[in-house]
Amino acid sequence: MTGAKSEPAPKPLLRALRGERLERPPWWLMRQAGRYLPEYRALRAQARDFVDFCLNPALASEATLQPVRRFGMDAAIIFADILLVPQALGQKLGFGDDGPLLEPVDEAVGISGLKLEGVASRLEPVGETIRRCRVSLPPQTALIGFAGAPWTVATYMVEGGGSRDFQRVKSWAYRDPNGFQGLIDLLTEATIDYLSMQIATGVEVVQLFDSWAGVLPENEFERWVIAPTRRITAALGERFPVVPVIGFPRGAGLLYERYVAESGVDAVSLDTTVPRGFARERLQPRLPVQGNLDPVLLVIGGEALERAVSELRATLSGRPYVFNLGHGVLPQTPPENVGMLAKLLSQPLD
Amino acid sequence: MTGAKSEPAPKPLLRALRGERLERPPWWLMRQAGRYLPEYRALRAQARDFVDFCLNPALASEATLQPVRRFGMDAAIIFADILLVPQALGQKLGFGDDGPLLEPVDEAVGISGLKLEGVASRLEPVGETIRRCRVSLPPQTALIGFAGAPWTVATYMVEGGGSRDFQRVKSWAYRDPNGFQGLIDLLTEATIDYLSMQIATGVEVVQLFDSWAGVLPENEFERWVIAPTRRITAALGERFPVVPVIGFPRGAGLLYERYVAESGVDAVSLDTTVPRGFARERLQPRLPVQGNLDPVLLVIGGEALERAVSELRATLSGRPYVFNLGHGVLPQTPPENVGMLAKLLSQPLD
Repeated sequence: MTGAKSEPAPKPLLRALRGERLERPPWWLMRQAGRYLPEYRALRAQARDFVDFCLNPALASEATLQPVRRFGMDAAIIFADILLVPQALGQKLGFGDDGPLLEPVDEAVGISGLKLEGVASRLEPVGETIRRCRVSLPPQTALIGFAGAPWTVATYMVEGGGSRDFQRVKSWAYRDPNGFQGLIDLLTEATIDYLSMQIATGVEVVQLFDSWAGVLPENEFERWVIAPTRRITAALGERFPVVPVIGFPRGAGLLYERYVAESGVDAVSLDTTVPRGFARERLQPRLPVQGNLDPVLLVIGGEALERAVSELRATLSGRPYVFNLGHGVLPQTPPENVGMLAKLLSQPLD
Repeated sequence: MTGAKSEPAPKPLLRALRGERLERPPWWLMRQAGRYLPEYRALRAQARDFVDFCLNPALASEATLQPVRRFGMDAAIIFADILLVPQALGQKLGFGDDGPLLEPVDEAVGISGLKLEGVASRLEPVGETIRRCRVSLPPQTALIGFAGAPWTVATYMVEGGGSRDFQRVKSWAYRDPNGFQGLIDLLTEATIDYLSMQIATGVEVVQLFDSWAGVLPENEFERWVIAPTRRITAALGERFPVVPVIGFPRGAGLLYERYVAESGVDAVSLDTTVPRGFARERLQPRLPVQGNLDPVLLVIGGEALERAVSELRATLSGRPYVFNLGHGVLPQTPPENVGMLAKLLSQPLD
């Protein structure tokens, strides 16, 4: 070391996402902040409802930091919800015991009641969460922002919550594709504004969650998943060329490859069902991959977890790779298993 | 035509499943008997509960025949439920408003309370349903039997019903694969016995529904989906070499190709998300394919339905192909849309 003031070394997550192969893969976990942590449950009890919690920068930033403090992940992901965007557009949002509830928009209602202008400023509390996290995170820990991808957010907006068969949203998209395009366009613009605000405020990476990408036939996947994602990556790439975008088209299966080739994402997150060999042969030569441990393995821990982590690393860490789950941390996960995972990942591969 | 008594022409479904390309593809629909038909709802009202209904040959055979009478599909599929097998093995089964409810089996309870011996004879009412259907079906209409594949049936048995994250069943399979293998083996044997009884009694084709094949990582897919299916197809193939087995590994995505190569099925049913081009290039050269119209298109009908049906036929009917949906008929489907589909499929492709 010289006495001159030196640039800090780039953060491991950013190195991997920019295409560097690391001996020890950087890691974080989807839903790493959440109900499996007792300190999260205590924090959550301080807010009346879930939306208030997400929009309270003191609470949301603390939730963001909790898992990093306990386990030392290579990244924190801001604590928020993909449905804050529809709420900021003017749709009523609540959370019941079975998940989110929205007053549905549909072909009849249309989207004229939704207001794009000022959407990012109505989401300013998330910006404040980001500022608070940036000053508190350890220097090697990256901060990730996120949004739901337009198709996935649209499913909740049209179905009024979760769905099994996506009949309402698909019906609209099939029967009146031009009308439905209006909703997707609105969400695309809102997502660009929202993520731009997040980046301008301090996140260093963004992830687009397309949790319901896997329910569409190919033509519709192209139109409602790939095309809006490409518009988002293009717009962000122009304004913020060094900020990587991770795409997560969960369940895309046979369409993962097309998504990788056409959506413009800088890295792709793999769900649990994506075969590791396929990821190595077909995806990693194009871009860094992230994933894809089955979250159930983190619930059970022990040898099964240890073996699966070794196999994943052995297959994927020969090229740029970010360790993660294939889906979010399950609420029943014993925190000590996440500790065990942290330890496993800190060791060199045999 | 000569005056000599001639063999009746083979049924179109059987011709397609044995590898013949037909100008007009044979068709049937998963859940073609069911709640979308007013005559079904009237029939259903005659039985106290759903299990009684399935095990009443007079009612179940009538339900089987109703859609064929109305729409003239090329096949009837016996009206039954994949969970009749766990019940016949001794597990308590009921149906609530939200679907099936079973008293769960798990690692602690084990499978010692389940009884394989005599399982097919306890399912004899299904045999009687088959006999009644055989005498009533038009001569060109094939009769299809079915069972749930072991993995899918096991998910219900261990979760105690439907599931979102399959945590209980996966935990067992990950933590104690040898113990879980005992349950899968039991189901494999029960399925062989049950389908053998169905074939001996008169079904001409069987379909294995692996509705939850799509939630497993590759290693587990090989062990819990492919391997048991291979045992079933091998056992049935030995006893009944001319009866085709259609496999439906719903959601298998990137693992469809491996399933086709290794499971021993004679034909494969495609869920809605399988790209048609992939099916044509990678699957059809190996075996007949079936599918995969989005059931939502049958709810909305009209031009969107017409266009999708034409595209499917244009892509897939150059090789052996059975028209079907990618998932079951939705209860909200207007029967007249199924009539429209029947008419479309009766016409030559432009």
